[in-house]
Amino acid sequence: MPRYAFRIEYDGRPFKGWQRQAELPSVQGTVEAALARLEKDIPSIAAAGRTDTGVHALGQVAHADLQRAWEPFRLAEALNYHLKPAPVAITACAEVTEAFHARFEATWRSYTYRMISRRAPLVHEAGHAWGVRGKLDVAAMAEGAKHLIGKHDFTTFRATHCQANSPVKTMDKVEVEEIPLPAGTEIRFHLKARSFLHNQVRSIVGSLEHVGSGAWAPDDIARALAACDRAECGTVAPPQGLYMTGVGYPEDPFAHGWSEA
Amino acid sequence: MPRYAFRIEYDGRPFKGWQRQAELPSVQGTVEAALARLEKDIPSIAAAGRTDTGVHALGQVAHADLQRAWEPFRLAEALNYHLKPAPVAITACAEVTEAFHARFEATWRSYTYRMISRRAPLVHEAGHAWGVRGKLDVAAMAEGAKHLIGKHDFTTFRATHCQANSPVKTMDKVEVEEIPLPAGTEIRFHLKARSFLHNQVRSIVGSLEHVGSGAWAPDDIARALAACDRAECGTVAPPQGLYMTGVGYPEDPFAHGWSEA
Repeated sequence: MPRYAFRIEYDGRPFKGWQRQAELPSVQGTVEAALARLEKDIPSIAAAGRTDTGVHALGQVAHADLQRAWEPFRLAEALNYHLKPAPVAITACAEVTEAFHARFEATWRSYTYRMISRRAPLVHEAGHAWGVRGKLDVAAMAEGAKHLIGKHDFTTFRATHCQANSPVKTMDKVEVEEIPLPAGTEIRFHLKARSFLHNQVRSIVGSLEHVGSGAWAPDDIARALAACDRAECGTVAPPQGLYMTGVGYPEDPFAHGWSEA
Repeated sequence: MPRYAFRIEYDGRPFKGWQRQAELPSVQGTVEAALARLEKDIPSIAAAGRTDTGVHALGQVAHADLQRAWEPFRLAEALNYHLKPAPVAITACAEVTEAFHARFEATWRSYTYRMISRRAPLVHEAGHAWGVRGKLDVAAMAEGAKHLIGKHDFTTFRATHCQANSPVKTMDKVEVEEIPLPAGTEIRFHLKARSFLHNQVRSIVGSLEHVGSGAWAPDDIARALAACDRAECGTVAPPQGLYMTGVGYPEDPFAHGWSEA
């Protein structure tokens, strides 16, 4: 059975997250239903990250074992046809070896969180960013973010129901980018790590918002981190600002397949 | 009666265009209904451009005469409160003199059209851009666009039901910008003129798409323009890619009011 890797983009709003659940709409269930239009008895597919309800993706990666040998471009086109009208699209597809596993072989994941600071409600970005009405000090948020880089116990920034074995993670990147908009300012938080804890990005961004608003000093991020206490976390930022942007592997699984230019 | 100018952002999807129509949702009707929550007997409001069904705005400008004197920031906040949950927001507000008229005093309008070239259906940009599946030659489109700059008879690029007195308009800017996306390429068309004919931007963009796809040579834009014949126009690009981005006046009406940073 040939194995295929897929890069997947989705709008998280209509879904109760990535993971298939009986009776509830999920991205996994939607992609599996599209695959089932191509071949019978498709085994369950595996993804690099199980995004939560309302969280978006630009670069989720999943793999599936099919019975037939497919030309990658044709497979992507057939899946995109059957995925309509769900807001899910295959943007890269390749045949990979059996050694490839979208989740277990991933060496890094990247996420971007979009926050928009302005008084007026969001219009074009509604459902695609977190609208924050108060003024934000972006330099202070960037200073606070630096405390999170490197290897730490992230118990403070982890959902209480997180099932990871260890709260210790290594953040390779926590960057803050400021983008002027026609009305307001967008602040993007770019995070990269081998893996993340449940709600880690949203917990970090919610706490950095406290720094931006002035409720916390930048050093309060270091204090909250050192406390290793979930009660020291700021608010958890809402899901609609979060995007899974990419996944890395020892070798690019799409190097010899098809991907959008 | 003090006069106020408003800069307005809206998502065109739920509306049958700017102009109020009995029984049909319109942006004008929505803004007037919000104003009516503040004061009784609000006269009809006037806007710089009457955008069509499904067309968006980032910088529409309108004015209204109110009975009370309002502090501009408070007026914008009150309107934004009453506009919810419609995807319409006030992003600037100022008191102006009676000489100000949003439509008749405007010295230029600017529009941006967003086209996205990729095989996969649009996900995050669905309803906010025109998805084109074929490859596009951006340099050829930019070359074709140059033929449109300056003063011309734009009969070819004008809706047959356009009510303007003259088909002669002066295009100050027709620029093509290429933006790489995580999956695909976005092409933005930036146009600026004192005023536009009905469907002019969408007729131009639809014709430039013919150039991008190779169906037309760049010089075919000059040929179509010179023909002064609506039948020589390419297809009319769909409304969801079009944004009214700004309006200019002899003096910035918002210089002494409130506007989003």
